[in-house]
Amino acid sequence: MHEVKNLLMVGGTHGNELTGIYLKKMWDAQPSLVQRPGLTVQTLLANPPAVKVCRRYVETDLNRCFRISSLGGVPGGLLEEQIAHQINQDYGPKGDPLAPDLVVDYHNSTAAMGLSLIIGKCTPYLRKLCAWLRGKHSSVHIYAMTEDSLNSPYLPSLGKQDLCVEVGPQMHGTLDARLLTATAEITKDILDFTVAWNQGNVSSECQEIPVYNHWCNLDFPRHENGTLRAMVHPSLLGADYSEVRPGDPLFIGFDNSIIPWQGNHSIWPVFISESAYYEKGIAMSLTLRTLQFW
Amino acid sequence: MHEVKNLLMVGGTHGNELTGIYLKKMWDAQPSLVQRPGLTVQTLLANPPAVKVCRRYVETDLNRCFRISSLGGVPGGLLEEQIAHQINQDYGPKGDPLAPDLVVDYHNSTAAMGLSLIIGKCTPYLRKLCAWLRGKHSSVHIYAMTEDSLNSPYLPSLGKQDLCVEVGPQMHGTLDARLLTATAEITKDILDFTVAWNQGNVSSECQEIPVYNHWCNLDFPRHENGTLRAMVHPSLLGADYSEVRPGDPLFIGFDNSIIPWQGNHSIWPVFISESAYYEKGIAMSLTLRTLQFW
Repeated sequence: MHEVKNLLMVGGTHGNELTGIYLKKMWDAQPSLVQRPGLTVQTLLANPPAVKVCRRYVETDLNRCFRISSLGGVPGGLLEEQIAHQINQDYGPKGDPLAPDLVVDYHNSTAAMGLSLIIGKCTPYLRKLCAWLRGKHSSVHIYAMTEDSLNSPYLPSLGKQDLCVEVGPQMHGTLDARLLTATAEITKDILDFTVAWNQGNVSSECQEIPVYNHWCNLDFPRHENGTLRAMVHPSLLGADYSEVRPGDPLFIGFDNSIIPWQGNHSIWPVFISESAYYEKGIAMSLTLRTLQFW
Repeated sequence: MHEVKNLLMVGGTHGNELTGIYLKKMWDAQPSLVQRPGLTVQTLLANPPAVKVCRRYVETDLNRCFRISSLGGVPGGLLEEQIAHQINQDYGPKGDPLAPDLVVDYHNSTAAMGLSLIIGKCTPYLRKLCAWLRGKHSSVHIYAMTEDSLNSPYLPSLGKQDLCVEVGPQMHGTLDARLLTATAEITKDILDFTVAWNQGNVSSECQEIPVYNHWCNLDFPRHENGTLRAMVHPSLLGADYSEVRPGDPLFIGFDNSIIPWQGNHSIWPVFISESAYYEKGIAMSLTLRTLQFW
């Protein structure tokens, strides 16, 4: 059973997602919040120039700059490519034994994501951590976006294990006191669990929990010139992680026409109408719900 | 009784407030939506460069560029100052008999503003219009921000009468189909009412309605370096237009300390935690509720 001893906790990967940015301020003001016996915890405000202007990014999305192919050699010319290189040097390098055992990256979504735990791999530690947090917090959802870690573009893939805490709904550039408090609590729980894990004090008994597995992204229906042809259907707004059955509405046109889900199986959409994803051509991400014994 | 015959309907004064921007597309595609007998209705997408990049503004807030002192003479060097000059030339000029009888400007807020009708003066037409819309739509709030029209910085002050339709909560850069439908309906009602008004078909009987009168703006508690010292208290999130009594909580510090309303009378906050106002130093606007016979 591998110990998880070196942690990196990251806020401000996106400069307008204030929960992580204010958590980092709280950690700076009161370092004991993230100190635990046997753990080495570093904290990082990842993109200070974007934080300063309160925008997601300055030149390109920092949270798409961490593919191993981008991190080797000379950094690209964009500000965030250079920041990614520097973070990789200072806290990685990615793929190296020196990289953190766990990177936790805090994000906000305008979608009703609750407290989503997004994991890039299903290691024994992450499975147990997710199952335990899910049992403790009713608003926790587990969202598995498993992929080849080295080719992942996301910042937390810098670590040997990665956890993105995605908190919403919260308008970018604002703070929701309830969500900040809930995120601070889950942070305390992550650290406490990790101490127990290293001490062998975690029950090996498995629990059955729902896991939402990333399937694909779905764009808005668009005209040829790229403008929207339809909006998310009202029944889906605020309804992240709800089941959509074949024939259920997905979009509504400006002429009130309904565009239904035409697959032959259910989907569970998330990141529904996330404001930062309009430019990425994503109206929602589709997941498939499974029950797992973790 | 003055007729209201020349109207200007404006979307995209802020480039990331999509309700008005998509209304304008709908009007372009189906001009009959805004055509009525006896009315001359022009429509305008006010800030196309900001719409293109889906940001509130490019260089400065267009909706603060319409003071008569700024519109005279040579325009300032900022993009939106030049756009304001051009709009004033094309659709005004402000203060001139040629200016529109009514300018309707569509905005979105991340705050729970419902369908707020913000009026800069209380003319007989606007009073009757507001009272009638309030009777027809349960989510209508009337927000009086009366001021010297010539010195008003807001775009709709270009008209002899002005109406800002402020719709929320909606994340900037996103569309909420329910809100778009509701705003399209209220637009139809504004035009239909105006035809009836010009024909003398509006009842002179007054109704008692609540009117929220702008009192002042309130900033967040801040540290000396400008960073936030507290957040909006959870009890106020989504609670725009609710009464706050002396001693009720307004803010909560990062140490969980409560900062109450210390005035000696009730207030009714609006624009609570509006994301675009963090940079303006506004946590909420305070209004005073009165009952008016309109």
